[in-house]
Amino acid sequence: MSRLFDKVMIAGVGLIGGSLALAARRAGLVGEVVGYGRREANLQLARDRGIIDAYSLDAAAAARDADLLFLAAPVGAMGSIAAACVSSLRADAIVTDAGSVKAAVLRDVEAALPAGVPFVGAHPIAGGEQTGSVAAVEDLFRGNLCILTPGARSTPPARAKIRQLWEGVGMRVLEMSADEHDAVLARVSHLPHVLAFALADALRTRADEVREFAGASFRDTTRIAASPTDVWADIFAMNRQHLTAALDELGAALEELRSAISRGDESAVRALIERARQAHAKMRGEG
Amino acid sequence: MSRLFDKVMIAGVGLIGGSLALAARRAGLVGEVVGYGRREANLQLARDRGIIDAYSLDAAAAARDADLLFLAAPVGAMGSIAAACVSSLRADAIVTDAGSVKAAVLRDVEAALPAGVPFVGAHPIAGGEQTGSVAAVEDLFRGNLCILTPGARSTPPARAKIRQLWEGVGMRVLEMSADEHDAVLARVSHLPHVLAFALADALRTRADEVREFAGASFRDTTRIAASPTDVWADIFAMNRQHLTAALDELGAALEELRSAISRGDESAVRALIERARQAHAKMRGEG
Repeated sequence: MSRLFDKVMIAGVGLIGGSLALAARRAGLVGEVVGYGRREANLQLARDRGIIDAYSLDAAAAARDADLLFLAAPVGAMGSIAAACVSSLRADAIVTDAGSVKAAVLRDVEAALPAGVPFVGAHPIAGGEQTGSVAAVEDLFRGNLCILTPGARSTPPARAKIRQLWEGVGMRVLEMSADEHDAVLARVSHLPHVLAFALADALRTRADEVREFAGASFRDTTRIAASPTDVWADIFAMNRQHLTAALDELGAALEELRSAISRGDESAVRALIERARQAHAKMRGEG
Repeated sequence: MSRLFDKVMIAGVGLIGGSLALAARRAGLVGEVVGYGRREANLQLARDRGIIDAYSLDAAAAARDADLLFLAAPVGAMGSIAAACVSSLRADAIVTDAGSVKAAVLRDVEAALPAGVPFVGAHPIAGGEQTGSVAAVEDLFRGNLCILTPGARSTPPARAKIRQLWEGVGMRVLEMSADEHDAVLARVSHLPHVLAFALADALRTRADEVREFAGASFRDTTRIAASPTDVWADIFAMNRQHLTAALDELGAALEELRSAISRGDESAVRALIERARQAHAKMRGEG
């Protein structure tokens, strides 16, 4: 595949930023890759692993002459990183991101960029609870879905190049509005994370019992409670409205089941389990 | 290993009952194995797979001359199955079970048995959301924990034989009271199942979106929402008090996080995530 960008600045060389660097390089889509972050040990490891060519703890220095600014930091930091980089970027540079929240990032990043700099929001739906450049792997994105959420600053050529970038690392690419994205992801991703954190928190005084007696059901249900605090505190804050609505929907379903259980209404419990199982089967494409 | 039982009647030849039959036979712990259940197709498959030697749709007939009655049906049915079998059993027979709820099963089964028949409750912590004899595998139990919850009818010899049975298929065996078991399992198993069902149910009108956009986090959090209705409706009903208490604890943790998110209190959200992560790490033996 032909090169899309000569010099990429990756802000946040973690699971997503590091994996994109590996995959895009391997596919010949990018030339030089420079990393920026706050933890030097993480950046050094990324350089030692060949994920990036160089790094700086100074965003403006890392962005010097880059024609792609790839924001892969926690979503709350993206606006200020974009602002710090903008004067260093090459004249024809494009800005993109990989955040799990899109409307607030669109607002923050557009506010930080001068009118002529294109911004194309993106969310590659891939990843896990691991963090840091140590977790980066080349095939993280292959076969998964990437959602582009173009905004007012998404010029057609910029949009096309960002689409080529994600398709070039093996993703299916779909476009929707930032708000539509946030409503859906609040339900299918942010809500399960709140639940996993709440379940681990509810059992915090029983950690020893859990370690001794929990089986696979508990392990799977709470796996994502190991997810990084910085990333998820920002996501919850920046998708607050949709997430609060999703939590209210969950609260209603949970209360319906709790009430049927606690009043001993077995036929209601049975009907609710059956409804949930049918929904779950449909979600897995079996319904 | 030497034979513990000459003839075993397995009531419920599903994932647990079928796997125990396979493992115990392979280890030479049991002689003849007869299955009982309600679905003939499942019993036929179990016989075709060599899990059982014979079966009957009549519990008393299946239990004829058995010296072990192994109850692996939904917990709500165990008392009546024991009652139906008791007059057919060999004079020195032992009754045991594999239910996920222990106090209510102890009560129901003891009530169904004449004074001289020993009963030793057990809960092998292994399994999954798969059902039926088609899911039975020989190594399901190996390396996992089995909890024995002896009651008034658990004679020392019966207790020793049931311990040997589970140890003989590779489990670590631990004893505790039925009530203690139910309090712990309400938290580490029954509560996550309620949550997975509630999450799938809350999103039932969005099944298409979930199928298209959900990643691994959603899949893992809801995997057990595929668990069988019969099994779990009975567990929820028969562990109602502990489960309701566990749901209240979860409700409090969830409300604390929901409230911090919805009022935009980022430092509180961060502190709650951090507390949950630390508890989760401790649960995984990393804390």
